[in-house]
Amino acid sequence: MEIPYKTYLTENEVPDAWYNMRADMKVKPSPLLNPATLKPVTAEEAEHIFCKELVRQELDAETPWFPIPKEIRDFYRMFRPSPLIRAYFLERALGTPAKIYYKFEGNNTSGSHKLNSAIAQAYYAKQQGLKGVTTETGAGQWGTALSMACAFFGLDCRVYMVKCSYEQKPFRREVMRTYGAQVTPSPSMLTEVGKRINAEHPGTTGSLGCAISEAVEDAVTHEGYRYVLGSVLAQVLLHQSIIGLEAKAAMDKLGVKPDVIIGCAGGGSNLGGLISPFMGEKLRGENDYRFIAVEPASCPSLTRGRYAYDFCDTGKVCPLQKMYTLGCDFIPSANHAGGLRYHGMSATLSELYAQGLMEAKSVKQTDVFEAATLFARTEGTLPAPESSHAIRAAIDEALECKRTGEAKTILFGLTGTGYFDLVAYQKFNDGVMGDYIPTDEELEASFAKLPPVG
Amino acid sequence: MEIPYKTYLTENEVPDAWYNMRADMKVKPSPLLNPATLKPVTAEEAEHIFCKELVRQELDAETPWFPIPKEIRDFYRMFRPSPLIRAYFLERALGTPAKIYYKFEGNNTSGSHKLNSAIAQAYYAKQQGLKGVTTETGAGQWGTALSMACAFFGLDCRVYMVKCSYEQKPFRREVMRTYGAQVTPSPSMLTEVGKRINAEHPGTTGSLGCAISEAVEDAVTHEGYRYVLGSVLAQVLLHQSIIGLEAKAAMDKLGVKPDVIIGCAGGGSNLGGLISPFMGEKLRGENDYRFIAVEPASCPSLTRGRYAYDFCDTGKVCPLQKMYTLGCDFIPSANHAGGLRYHGMSATLSELYAQGLMEAKSVKQTDVFEAATLFARTEGTLPAPESSHAIRAAIDEALECKRTGEAKTILFGLTGTGYFDLVAYQKFNDGVMGDYIPTDEELEASFAKLPPVG
Repeated sequence: MEIPYKTYLTENEVPDAWYNMRADMKVKPSPLLNPATLKPVTAEEAEHIFCKELVRQELDAETPWFPIPKEIRDFYRMFRPSPLIRAYFLERALGTPAKIYYKFEGNNTSGSHKLNSAIAQAYYAKQQGLKGVTTETGAGQWGTALSMACAFFGLDCRVYMVKCSYEQKPFRREVMRTYGAQVTPSPSMLTEVGKRINAEHPGTTGSLGCAISEAVEDAVTHEGYRYVLGSVLAQVLLHQSIIGLEAKAAMDKLGVKPDVIIGCAGGGSNLGGLISPFMGEKLRGENDYRFIAVEPASCPSLTRGRYAYDFCDTGKVCPLQKMYTLGCDFIPSANHAGGLRYHGMSATLSELYAQGLMEAKSVKQTDVFEAATLFARTEGTLPAPESSHAIRAAIDEALECKRTGEAKTILFGLTGTGYFDLVAYQKFNDGVMGDYIPTDEELEASFAKLPPVG
Repeated sequence: MEIPYKTYLTENEVPDAWYNMRADMKVKPSPLLNPATLKPVTAEEAEHIFCKELVRQELDAETPWFPIPKEIRDFYRMFRPSPLIRAYFLERALGTPAKIYYKFEGNNTSGSHKLNSAIAQAYYAKQQGLKGVTTETGAGQWGTALSMACAFFGLDCRVYMVKCSYEQKPFRREVMRTYGAQVTPSPSMLTEVGKRINAEHPGTTGSLGCAISEAVEDAVTHEGYRYVLGSVLAQVLLHQSIIGLEAKAAMDKLGVKPDVIIGCAGGGSNLGGLISPFMGEKLRGENDYRFIAVEPASCPSLTRGRYAYDFCDTGKVCPLQKMYTLGCDFIPSANHAGGLRYHGMSATLSELYAQGLMEAKSVKQTDVFEAATLFARTEGTLPAPESSHAIRAAIDEALECKRTGEAKTILFGLTGTGYFDLVAYQKFNDGVMGDYIPTDEELEASFAKLPPVG
């Protein structure tokens, strides 16, 4: 059978339940801790901040399958199933015997996989009878996805957007406004924490940590609002399992088994989603696969971080989580993959990495854009800088196959498109893009500030 | 049978030949005229400017089917088949008994249907052994599509981009550069016509007409180069017939027949492509359909223009064509659908309209963005301003069905996405978007300058 360039599942073949990878882990990820008591966060505590059903999903490390509600499946039909694509033209350009496949999540207006979880989180907020949700956004993909989801369910959506992004990325902001979201530059004068930061740092252009703190304060001080988050959390990995479940169903249909599965990793939601069903087989001893998490050399949480309890946010208002971290005060040098500039990593992925079930590598920004350009010119799609980390690693694997003559099957996740990242491409095209790698001293200084827990 | 939200043809079901609508027209479109001799343009004359095979397609009004070469079909696999989508959520929001379908051409990096013809034109240039092609671009969709196509075949691509767009739309420019194109702001100092215009109008920000003249001069003065154009011409409608052929194949598969088919119309390539096979049935007396061309009230060539011979370009270097035109010197007031700001209309569509086989209507810009916003919030995808003209008309038809209780089947073309049009959305979101409608006096003044031909 000739493998088609693109494989779409039929709407009937689309999975109707999410898979919870933790259920098959013998050693589970460590529990979230309340920073005040250093005891595991209870459902009751968490429900002040998060939606009830999402808390249930977050704290459940035992149930393997969660049925996807019909309303969410209906919304998924607008942009799912996403295609599984055989990269014939990239293979030809590389002259490799490797067979390269990618699961493309960018064919929707949010431009990335974020919509998979945004619609789920909006749905549960609606189910709970809430008026709306609050969140933060940096580069803007998550804010866009959440705006689209809230528009669909008629929920109010309040997005705190890091002020420098708000000003420098007006287009993302306008997409959110078009979907009816209220977008506020952070730090704002709408919250106490925002007022305090503006007073202490006049003229500040904000940070993701500050925006999280504002969004959380907004949620907990307004009746009928909760805070939602687009990555890192176990609930988000659960929703993103749809990526891997579809990819695996399509590959099974084609009679193809990947040898190595590659994804970029910021907070870990895309990678965690992509590998879920494959990792499930590995955990249950049914099949073996190599998994590679790819992170920027400028923000190398898995490859150079500590496995320790740390705050999920720079503002230190969120629970503590055991994860690979560079320290919640670590500010990664400027890089153009905003979605990968996170100091920590999903607790689930961290534990899998600690157990040696997954590999990790870091790649330099200029090498990433070189791969992105080759990919664009051969496969057509202009990739997001984040996704291009996975492309770089996939190309490196394919070139290694060329050297050894092995015809491995490679699967990687193409999480999104780069249509709002042209400033970065321009820097690369003009030959003025830099590479930024933290020194050991910088990292040690950051580790020294980790909270003394566990 | 329940109609799925999205219908994709399998790769085997994708059409393998383009359909030439002119073949079934009893009265053919009038021939292109050489402006110097006022005699029909010969193949030999045209081949100085255009690729040989494309000239053959342009001048052939008799052959109904042109096989699509394998290399083009291979490239099509990267972004085709495009989905036929049932707009369930829009229907629900409108509360209409109408059944709305749209053929979505925006899921590729050029962001529109332009790639369908760009890859064909690049292929024939490569076949002819050319080094490269030249073209002009205004808003940038066509330039982007051509850059992608040229990167695929290793052709040099020289794009003359209207200077104000070059400066105001740096992102489109960077996409083209990422695909290896040489993008020059027009008027430039690279051509005689550019130098002359710069000398006569110091500080000018250029025009599409000037950019066309530069691109044509570049092609005819350089060995191994030809000029290519992204709309208006019969060859472009031929390539774009893939849109309609796929749409019809998908509807046939679903057992559905559209009552009315709607497309936005600038030069006419998307509309001509979408209606082709349906119009073929109407011309042969096999089936009847209503066709509606939708144009901006600010540039109403069909609804308020003259059916006369006119220049295809403002620079008056291209052949004369009989078409509905506002006059080649007509400068439409600023509007945000750059792809619809063309003074004339495809000769084929003009003749069909003159024969009463197709309707036309014009819509106001603010009404278009109101429709675009409703569409984005219900169907997910943020539409291009051009495409949103068709959305507006489709919504109006569906609301008329709501009034009368008729359950008509509506098909419209969603040509592209609005990811590079956020300045326009911002104006609409801020409530500062205007409507511009030319006065009768303005149009009469423009008509008075039409060339005295025929």
